[in-house]
Amino acid sequence: MRSGVRVTVIGGGSSYTPELIDGFIRHAPELPVETITLVDVPEGADKMQAVGELARRMLARAGLTTTLNWTLERRPALAEADFVCFQFRVGGLAARERDERIALSHGAIGQETVGAGGFAKALRTVPVALELAEELTEVNPRAWILNFTNPSGMVTEALLKYSSLRTIGLCNVPINLQAAIARLVEAERDDIRLEMFGLNHLSFVRRIWWQGRDLWPTWLSELEEHWPRLPQQPFSVGLIRAVGLIPNDYLKYYWLTGDMLDRQLADYAAGKGTRATEVMALEASLFQKYRDPALTEAPPELSQRGGALYSEVAVTTMVSLATNRAQEMVVNVRNGTTLADLPPDAAVEVSCLVDGRGARPLVQEPMPLTVRGLVQQVKSYERMTIEAAVTGNRDLALAALINNPLVPSAGCAEAIWADILRLHAAYLPRF
Amino acid sequence: MRSGVRVTVIGGGSSYTPELIDGFIRHAPELPVETITLVDVPEGADKMQAVGELARRMLARAGLTTTLNWTLERRPALAEADFVCFQFRVGGLAARERDERIALSHGAIGQETVGAGGFAKALRTVPVALELAEELTEVNPRAWILNFTNPSGMVTEALLKYSSLRTIGLCNVPINLQAAIARLVEAERDDIRLEMFGLNHLSFVRRIWWQGRDLWPTWLSELEEHWPRLPQQPFSVGLIRAVGLIPNDYLKYYWLTGDMLDRQLADYAAGKGTRATEVMALEASLFQKYRDPALTEAPPELSQRGGALYSEVAVTTMVSLATNRAQEMVVNVRNGTTLADLPPDAAVEVSCLVDGRGARPLVQEPMPLTVRGLVQQVKSYERMTIEAAVTGNRDLALAALINNPLVPSAGCAEAIWADILRLHAAYLPRF
Amino acid sequence: MRSGVRVTVIGGGSSYTPELIDGFIRHAPELPVETITLVDVPEGADKMQAVGELARRMLARAGLTTTLNWTLERRPALAEADFVCFQFRVGGLAARERDERIALSHGAIGQETVGAGGFAKALRTVPVALELAEELTEVNPRAWILNFTNPSGMVTEALLKYSSLRTIGLCNVPINLQAAIARLVEAERDDIRLEMFGLNHLSFVRRIWWQGRDLWPTWLSELEEHWPRLPQQPFSVGLIRAVGLIPNDYLKYYWLTGDMLDRQLADYAAGKGTRATEVMALEASLFQKYRDPALTEAPPELSQRGGALYSEVAVTTMVSLATNRAQEMVVNVRNGTTLADLPPDAAVEVSCLVDGRGARPLVQEPMPLTVRGLVQQVKSYERMTIEAAVTGNRDLALAALINNPLVPSAGCAEAIWADILRLHAAYLPRF
Amino acid sequence: MRSGVRVTVIGGGSSYTPELIDGFIRHAPELPVETITLVDVPEGADKMQAVGELARRMLARAGLTTTLNWTLERRPALAEADFVCFQFRVGGLAARERDERIALSHGAIGQETVGAGGFAKALRTVPVALELAEELTEVNPRAWILNFTNPSGMVTEALLKYSSLRTIGLCNVPINLQAAIARLVEAERDDIRLEMFGLNHLSFVRRIWWQGRDLWPTWLSELEEHWPRLPQQPFSVGLIRAVGLIPNDYLKYYWLTGDMLDRQLADYAAGKGTRATEVMALEASLFQKYRDPALTEAPPELSQRGGALYSEVAVTTMVSLATNRAQEMVVNVRNGTTLADLPPDAAVEVSCLVDGRGARPLVQEPMPLTVRGLVQQVKSYERMTIEAAVTGNRDLALAALINNPLVPSAGCAEAIWADILRLHAAYLPRF
Repeated sequence: MRSGVRVTVIGGGSSYTPELIDGFIRHAPELPVETITLVDVPEGADKMQAVGELARRMLARAGLTTTLNWTLERRPALAEADFVCFQFRVGGLAARERDERIALSHGAIGQETVGAGGFAKALRTVPVALELAEELTEVNPRAWILNFTNPSGMVTEALLKYSSLRTIGLCNVPINLQAAIARLVEAERDDIRLEMFGLNHLSFVRRIWWQGRDLWPTWLSELEEHWPRLPQQPFSVGLIRAVGLIPNDYLKYYWLTGDMLDRQLADYAAGKGTRATEVMALEASLFQKYRDPALTEAPPELSQRGGALYSEVAVTTMVSLATNRAQEMVVNVRNGTTLADLPPDAAVEVSCLVDGRGARPLVQEPMPLTVRGLVQQVKSYERMTIEAAVTGNRDLALAALINNPLVPSAGCAEAIWADILRLHAAYLPRF
Repeated sequence: MRSGVRVTVIGGGSSYTPELIDGFIRHAPELPVETITLVDVPEGADKMQAVGELARRMLARAGLTTTLNWTLERRPALAEADFVCFQFRVGGLAARERDERIALSHGAIGQETVGAGGFAKALRTVPVALELAEELTEVNPRAWILNFTNPSGMVTEALLKYSSLRTIGLCNVPINLQAAIARLVEAERDDIRLEMFGLNHLSFVRRIWWQGRDLWPTWLSELEEHWPRLPQQPFSVGLIRAVGLIPNDYLKYYWLTGDMLDRQLADYAAGKGTRATEVMALEASLFQKYRDPALTEAPPELSQRGGALYSEVAVTTMVSLATNRAQEMVVNVRNGTTLADLPPDAAVEVSCLVDGRGARPLVQEPMPLTVRGLVQQVKSYERMTIEAAVTGNRDLALAALINNPLVPSAGCAEAIWADILRLHAAYLPRF
Repeated sequence: MRSGVRVTVIGGGSSYTPELIDGFIRHAPELPVETITLVDVPEGADKMQAVGELARRMLARAGLTTTLNWTLERRPALAEADFVCFQFRVGGLAARERDERIALSHGAIGQETVGAGGFAKALRTVPVALELAEELTEVNPRAWILNFTNPSGMVTEALLKYSSLRTIGLCNVPINLQAAIARLVEAERDDIRLEMFGLNHLSFVRRIWWQGRDLWPTWLSELEEHWPRLPQQPFSVGLIRAVGLIPNDYLKYYWLTGDMLDRQLADYAAGKGTRATEVMALEASLFQKYRDPALTEAPPELSQRGGALYSEVAVTTMVSLATNRAQEMVVNVRNGTTLADLPPDAAVEVSCLVDGRGARPLVQEPMPLTVRGLVQQVKSYERMTIEAAVTGNRDLALAALINNPLVPSAGCAEAIWADILRLHAAYLPRF
Repeated sequence: MRSGVRVTVIGGGSSYTPELIDGFIRHAPELPVETITLVDVPEGADKMQAVGELARRMLARAGLTTTLNWTLERRPALAEADFVCFQFRVGGLAARERDERIALSHGAIGQETVGAGGFAKALRTVPVALELAEELTEVNPRAWILNFTNPSGMVTEALLKYSSLRTIGLCNVPINLQAAIARLVEAERDDIRLEMFGLNHLSFVRRIWWQGRDLWPTWLSELEEHWPRLPQQPFSVGLIRAVGLIPNDYLKYYWLTGDMLDRQLADYAAGKGTRATEVMALEASLFQKYRDPALTEAPPELSQRGGALYSEVAVTTMVSLATNRAQEMVVNVRNGTTLADLPPDAAVEVSCLVDGRGARPLVQEPMPLTVRGLVQQVKSYERMTIEAAVTGNRDLALAALINNPLVPSAGCAEAIWADILRLHAAYLPRF
């Protein structure tokens, strides 16, 4: 007789894990959890132990009977899970730092998930995700994969295409946008519904549903008044009015490329390194805290790490899957006929009905012309990247990079690709 | 009793006209021409007279009885034509020079037909093309429009969408690519057939048909040997192998953006101005020659003007339309279902069967992933530009410019758009 | 201060109205109703009064304060409504009887909603539905139309296409199928979810979701055991196994045409008339009961009328629209990209998420080949019928009828069409 | 040094072969033929010898040096061919007679290529065609298959889908329609061009191109005058005006089903058997003539056999393929994006440009709604039939038959399918 669901976390030694535990504690009344099993690779064993011990303290403090274990043996951990969370990082932050640095050194945006950095990360990550899926298929084909590993859109597309496992790709950007807009109208987050479409880190809000009507047409017609109230967003009123949609924050890399690049280059010149350098420092400090036996909850600094509401998305998805509670969420799924201008087997980030059957997308109107071409171009890039990652086809990898809008020229693409091949050889055995 | 077809040339005072006359002379045995009527605006009257007198001398020397007239009254000239050739230029070379300079001044490629320059030209030109089409529809709805006015793809799309006239969009890039490849294999130009797809100034060769087989797969597999033999092309072997197609020369602006921009900026800094400046000097010299009563053929310098084989495309198209002689040509037509990843009412540049019924596209396989996204993105830009030109919608115009891959950022787009509106106000009455 | 929603019923004098009132009484805790206004044409005034008085007695007995009125003036009744229910019948049962008789007399299925009968009814009904929609748009453009008027699929498509009003097409077949399957597995009706697709009266169940899994694959593999347990369905095990889906009962007309026709002809030969004759007798008896002042609830005979669970569908839809309560329902909506093998502006009957925003379809896999062609053929017929109804184009009307699978030949279609034109001239002013 | 093309004819013992030889003689100036090799199965050896000897006499009389051989060993005959003509008939006319009789005995149209007869023939024929293709792929992958074996559309689709050989499906209906219309306007057949679309034996003329214009719009608007002039066509003016297209003669089975069935049943009741019975008698008489050593040309009775202009289509196709002479023809090819409402890998019968590269379809406008549904339904039936033929899936075979518009009900389909399985077991090893 099971007392709750079983969750296995691949990349369990991540600094995010306490966030996730927090989510399980918050949602314990709706979702009893029997066991949580953290899994990591030997290089991550030490961090996993620190995180695991903190997690146990957190659960104990919350008065939960959930069993929490950690292990380096992933097969048995996969075999028993109802939900397998992917939050691993191939090559760790050191590889990410190289990704960002290679791109910057050739005058291109250096970022974890978009541009040449996301490309390199996808090449490293997709084969590992597919190996995991293959193993899971053997031992436990009814399990759900909840993928947070970046680039989440490409990893999810690869899993949907090359595996028969039920997979949902998650991201915390949509829920944070929802939260920001809710604060603006002084509503509860759940009383706001955003209709969104696009790709992971390239999605757009087309409707803001609140109290029975769509706020967006009015906001758009009075944009000078409303737009500046949305905090921490870098887009001009003129740009938003032209596009007619609220963009995912990552659009700044596509629409404000020069500014973003200048900022990255300035930071780098000033000795600050890339964002990965910053995150590495943050992680060191976080793990120091995690190791303090007196700590029994996620420290506030964790929120600076970038994963706000991560656990909210992950755990409420599990609630819907496990208990058949219907909710509308913006997640990454197989396109099918949702967005007619993208291939059926593409992963897309769209409004879905999530319940015990999984995440089923709601039919969308065609993508507005103002962003359709960009989404199509990026999806073409993503598809070539995934296929290159799977086949080890170098020409296709280069073609992918040439098609990435954040790589300024074919020459730059050739130079970056040569560096990636050279510096990441250990992680790219298929090439 | 008619002794041949009647041709009306809008923009008849263009320096290209002698090229066109040359074509009529060359193809006179297949296509008897009764009258050629040049039409221009008052500002072009003087040039038109010079060109007209030269044209008469050329026809006389060739022993043809074709009547050649010139006039500022376009309505009667449209009324009698079998073929109406569009080769007009709204605002003349001065406007083009401004287009190129505005773009360059904001750090973007300054070019007549692509990037921000092509955008500005389209906004000026589309409304005039549609007015001409409306007038032609009233007086002579059975006439054919052969459009050479740039940006030829967008002007043709506007004509196909907003007029019911039979229109074919022409460009001399495909025939020159055919000629270059023919020279390479030491074949007659007409013995080579290129299967092409894409958009005007964004098209690609996917097959080279010669003596019953496709040369391209072999060339592609031995690209180091074959590619360097193709003269005057700027693309690296690595790039071509990645893409797997032979690109239209204009792809250099998209794939080698930085190099092209550096070259343009260097020329400008060196006081050479833009390409328009160069063309203006060339035109002045050409017209000086044209005015020499002893000149009875097109001077060799004309070929430097950029219109090589222009008349070959124009006149052989007329031959097929007038005499029902079937030939396969790469021209701009309504997409329909030709390229499934583009809208049906888009203009595309594809292999067509041209005969008395017009230009009917041959069904194509899907566009290769290596260029599909770029083509889709540029087509999105084109569609917004056309709609903005027709409606005067400023937000849409800005959205178009933001979507152009040769405009580096949204901020740059806003700045360029402000300059275009200010400096070209006289040509943009709809805004 | 409103005390509940306002509902206007067009065709309020229908014998179904007590069913609807019953639904409002049942769902009163969830959906307070301020006023119900019955509207009918002068010919129906007498019946409307009888129904109205019964409805008042029913509401009083239930202890509700809902105001119930009836009127012949539809404009004010439309102006105040939150929900407008269409349940009118142009020409009454007499016209239906003629429809069925005309078809039978030429050797074709005579039925209210499919075949030549449904065709004639659509031609009469679509223009009236559009006039109503036009009037409603003028006085109350925010109202919802809930359409039950048959042929519900075609009437809904016409409303979605030619009006901007928010419209949902309803039918009680899906809910009855859900109820039958629930009884079979001894579940509550609401614990079963059917995933359905197709057209109104031409829809199919592809999944039966119960307790976290799909029952259908197992049933299909052991069909001999399971199929006979489904009550009152006429399809053989062999047929269902071949098709692989559970069909809407109306499929019997398409798949068992000969049997159904023989039965109709035998009944007619035996003097029983058509189904309309039977319904007319039933209605007479019902209205006799309705007029009994002692009657304060819907009489049990009403269920024989064919509208079982009609009110359940209608009222729960209003609950979701009015209170934003999300539920999954099978209703008729604009296709968009739901079923890729049908036009976007077609009405389809599919699984939808219904809440305050309306009914949004869930993305579907492609229709199985085993029924796709039939659905496409019938949709073609429907589209021509709707266009003919709107334009009065006789050739198109005939083409529609020729395309109807229940009309055995073009000659038969010509004969039926001539009779419809002659016998229904008064209802077909556009022809 | 080859003196001409090499042609291998599978089913060489057919009574049609002299027609084909006639075509080679007629087109000898354009297409020198080195060898013609007839191949047949042992049961056909005797007929093949008779035909072969006649063919030699015909070639000799024409003064041609073409070598003509016949053999039962197909592998070497396939190995040397440039063109392989498929005109074989699995089970001979006896099997066809059974097909027709089975269908008639259950009250369905009994016909060789459409309805249940075409279905049975497809099940027998598709596996044999694919075995031939496999053998040909092994020994001679560059050969062209020209398929005339019926049902030509389904056999061609199977070859295009399951083999990589270059295949064109041919039929003589389009050329005969072209000839009939040419006679009507007193033009040469080649001066008329028909724009056609649809499926084999389910195709439609949408334009009649003659002397630079389309005759059809005028004919359609004055149909009472023009239609009766078209000889031997069974469709009423009303039907044609409704449909707006000129149908392939086989449409009589779909649109005049009752009449055609009555005629077939009457003939059968009168002891005339089916069309196969008639053809068997005709064949016997033809072969008697063929065996006459004095006969040196195709006897006039051959034209009654139903293959008029068969050789014209076959030989002119070979001329275009062998000599790169471009001509526009209506043939069966892979759909791709030609008809957007049908799957890309369907075979369709459409206007193509045929030259040395093969047959490339010209892009079509969408199919008119008046026939689109029927074409889609029949194509669905065809696809299920082909897949059933390949896999031996009985459920799918039954589903195909249920979807055939000429099978009146599911019960009839089940009965016919049982008979086919029983009576044709020898030819259906996969079931």
